[in-house]
Amino acid sequence: MKIAIAQINTIAGDIKFNSAKIREYAALAKKNGAELAVFPELSLPGGFAGDLYLRKDFLKACEKEISVLAKELDIPVVLGSSFGGENAVIYIDKGRIEPLSFKILFGREKKYFNGNDLQMSVKGFSCCIYSGAKELEQSLKKAAELQAETLLVLANEPFYIGVNEELTEEITAYAEKFSINIAFINGVGAQDGFVSFGSSFAVNKAGFIEASAKQFEEDLIFADFVLNTKVQIEEIPMEKQVYDALVLGLKDYAVKNGFKKFVLGVSGGADSALTAVIAKDAFGAENVTGIFMPSDITSKRSRDDAELLCKMNNIKLLEIPISKTFKSFKNDLSEIFKGVKIDVAEENLQSRIRGVLLMAYSNKFNALLMTSGNRSEIASGYCTLYGDCAGGYAVICDLPKSYLYKVCDWRNSVSKAIPKSVLEKEPTAELRENQKDSDSLPPYDILDGIIDKFADSFEGKEEIVLSEEEKQIFKMISLAEYKRRQLPLGTKLLKYSLKDIQLPVTNGYKQ
Amino acid sequence: MKIAIAQINTIAGDIKFNSAKIREYAALAKKNGAELAVFPELSLPGGFAGDLYLRKDFLKACEKEISVLAKELDIPVVLGSSFGGENAVIYIDKGRIEPLSFKILFGREKKYFNGNDLQMSVKGFSCCIYSGAKELEQSLKKAAELQAETLLVLANEPFYIGVNEELTEEITAYAEKFSINIAFINGVGAQDGFVSFGSSFAVNKAGFIEASAKQFEEDLIFADFVLNTKVQIEEIPMEKQVYDALVLGLKDYAVKNGFKKFVLGVSGGADSALTAVIAKDAFGAENVTGIFMPSDITSKRSRDDAELLCKMNNIKLLEIPISKTFKSFKNDLSEIFKGVKIDVAEENLQSRIRGVLLMAYSNKFNALLMTSGNRSEIASGYCTLYGDCAGGYAVICDLPKSYLYKVCDWRNSVSKAIPKSVLEKEPTAELRENQKDSDSLPPYDILDGIIDKFADSFEGKEEIVLSEEEKQIFKMISLAEYKRRQLPLGTKLLKYSLKDIQLPVTNGYKQ
Repeated sequence: MKIAIAQINTIAGDIKFNSAKIREYAALAKKNGAELAVFPELSLPGGFAGDLYLRKDFLKACEKEISVLAKELDIPVVLGSSFGGENAVIYIDKGRIEPLSFKILFGREKKYFNGNDLQMSVKGFSCCIYSGAKELEQSLKKAAELQAETLLVLANEPFYIGVNEELTEEITAYAEKFSINIAFINGVGAQDGFVSFGSSFAVNKAGFIEASAKQFEEDLIFADFVLNTKVQIEEIPMEKQVYDALVLGLKDYAVKNGFKKFVLGVSGGADSALTAVIAKDAFGAENVTGIFMPSDITSKRSRDDAELLCKMNNIKLLEIPISKTFKSFKNDLSEIFKGVKIDVAEENLQSRIRGVLLMAYSNKFNALLMTSGNRSEIASGYCTLYGDCAGGYAVICDLPKSYLYKVCDWRNSVSKAIPKSVLEKEPTAELRENQKDSDSLPPYDILDGIIDKFADSFEGKEEIVLSEEEKQIFKMISLAEYKRRQLPLGTKLLKYSLKDIQLPVTNGYKQ
Repeated sequence: MKIAIAQINTIAGDIKFNSAKIREYAALAKKNGAELAVFPELSLPGGFAGDLYLRKDFLKACEKEISVLAKELDIPVVLGSSFGGENAVIYIDKGRIEPLSFKILFGREKKYFNGNDLQMSVKGFSCCIYSGAKELEQSLKKAAELQAETLLVLANEPFYIGVNEELTEEITAYAEKFSINIAFINGVGAQDGFVSFGSSFAVNKAGFIEASAKQFEEDLIFADFVLNTKVQIEEIPMEKQVYDALVLGLKDYAVKNGFKKFVLGVSGGADSALTAVIAKDAFGAENVTGIFMPSDITSKRSRDDAELLCKMNNIKLLEIPISKTFKSFKNDLSEIFKGVKIDVAEENLQSRIRGVLLMAYSNKFNALLMTSGNRSEIASGYCTLYGDCAGGYAVICDLPKSYLYKVCDWRNSVSKAIPKSVLEKEPTAELRENQKDSDSLPPYDILDGIIDKFADSFEGKEEIVLSEEEKQIFKMISLAEYKRRQLPLGTKLLKYSLKDIQLPVTNGYKQ
């Protein structure tokens, strides 16, 4: 049986849009001679829809749409949807609607769905929704009991570094071990920072990959599980995967929320440079505006680098010096601050003036303000609330600074986009004379390692032992939680991203 | 048997602090002749600790502390703690440690605990952790099977309007129905906006309340379940309960995070007036600073009202006019905004200048900036990100504007605090000439009703039918989700508070 794997990009809550997409791909599948079209997990309600899965009227609207699809589609279809209180796999064929499997739930999903046990087979195939290796093994055993030849594994897995390789290896090994054909049908596209990565594939019972879909793009592929068919899977460099995830994360946030213009503060540093180039690659240079906002202490090199970056990428660069307004604020506060020494309040003030200017531009021209803080800063709290943290989407908020340079190098290997000078200088916030990040933080490779350890400690796998330096950084991360609570959304890149961790703000366990 | 109900205020993650509190109250209980001391749900790790419940080292530290307590305490104790992967009731007696009950879980708790079935009895009493009426009935049946005379119901229930009355009635009715003594041991104190409300009580099998603890304060009460003992429960006006919750919510956030000074923008309006008075009642007038920040369009009445408010309450009032800095910003942007008409960008600019000034004061003097937006504004998005939304704690973010006036009236009935003139004028953001809230929003009583309906729709109980106006407001609420994601924490007051709802930002279901 020839099956079509429809790797589609849906919108959370937009039943009409998602349903139209399912019709379109089902028609394409039929046209190409497929006997069954398979769609990803939750493709009808859209994935990562949060508490929408609690709304009775929404759930009912989904089930109603399934009835309509069942009547209208002229090819048997397997799709993921909320159904009867479950995250379900539904089989539709000539008006018949049959739930084939319910997802085995973990973590927060238990808030939304019941997780009753169900796995059936139809026409020699069985189904499940991906929920981890252990659960997949359970489904494979059940499929063997049901004497199914093929297991359809629906998913809507978000990207993180390494996930594609892990899943491909795991599923391929299982196909061989259980001697069963497996199709992995993943969603694609971003929802509030979760980038479903696509890369669906079909592996036959000999462990040969027969068909493989694009990463980070919609795709339609076909498989009939004939033995000895084999496609060569090309390895995608991790830096490219990360870069593509960043582009799609931003792009889908913008498109699905109706933004067409984009703005960011360009400082001459690496964070804003990479963010600008990502935006250019996502929307075209003509839709991106950079604003350079020098103060009295901004160096010539910062200006040169900002100008060079925008010139290299054809990005419009505006300049708004902040010195006058900074002086005006200092004047407003002079009475109140009299006799108190200059400190971080004045540093933050400069950063916040930039935030206000950028938001004014954003409001005036309906341009999405892109925040360019990286994960190392955001974890350690080395950033200013309502200043450099301000914006609608934090493009690289989950990208560790030490890895950022590798991503920039990869992007430059495709075409020169980020000036060498930007990448070679020492990182600085330029909020006081001769300030360097290294005055306040350990070297980024060390800091990033400790942040990883912090995030991993919530995996709950093992007990951790901490050095004194690690304890200090752990405390710093806990103390900065209140800032992270007020950050815009941004693209998840790591398995345990700080945005995934629900740390209390009031927290006596600062280690 | 005389039992002591120890209604204590703990800190999430602060095992040492919580353990010391348990020792203190256990000693007091023994001194007063109690034979058993009972503590609230999760009193050792602290409640609402989020993903800390996933950290192996933290969980292990809790269990280690239980061993220490078991050796040191010289009175049998029942307490709530994480234990063996469960939200558990632990019995401690002369070195013996025995789990007596595991919580029946719902919603997000399932992320943290296993929820295995356990309910034992010791010395004629049985235990459970409160998880809803249905689950309580289950525990009562189990207690009857175990022939327990008394059920100890541990809890850490957060305040919302009506919860105290609901729970008292429910539990009292159950005691009579099942002819069993019930002690309801609730935590007290605020954690990141959840205000555990206390009001623990003991009801005997005749349905008479024997002992009752204070609302919103630590307390130690005793019960021996002798029939025909009865205390009169005084009804607390709802406006007082709400006001006290607001005071404790703010106070505990500040105390547990180390703040001693407080600042807010005082506009002359009702929101900032109420917020200022709450802060005064929580910390004393000498620790609260109001800043009045007039623009060219600020009315004389606004100034008079701001001055009167601060004078009436002995709150220090600073004045920082924003006109010059507003002019400076407009000048900075004049080139870029040339030929584009004046709109909401300029309104937001004024609000953000105020945000920057307040944050500068907050940074300079380590004063907690209190945000004074109400629930009606925050729901509808009638507020400025990084402007009036800026701050460390959003004191009244869950208080509907139409109810706010009632709370002000109640507070004024205790002692005059909020000027009549503040309460009598029409609400305005004063960001353009002659602006009124009613230009952009329906009357607040109607708006608040629709917001309630929106929040209730996530309860998932029934399908909702919407009028055209309701659809518009529902859409407005969905569209403002991105703002709410960047808000500071604030006190929960309603059963379904918008902060409890995980609405997607990218959301095709805007109804």
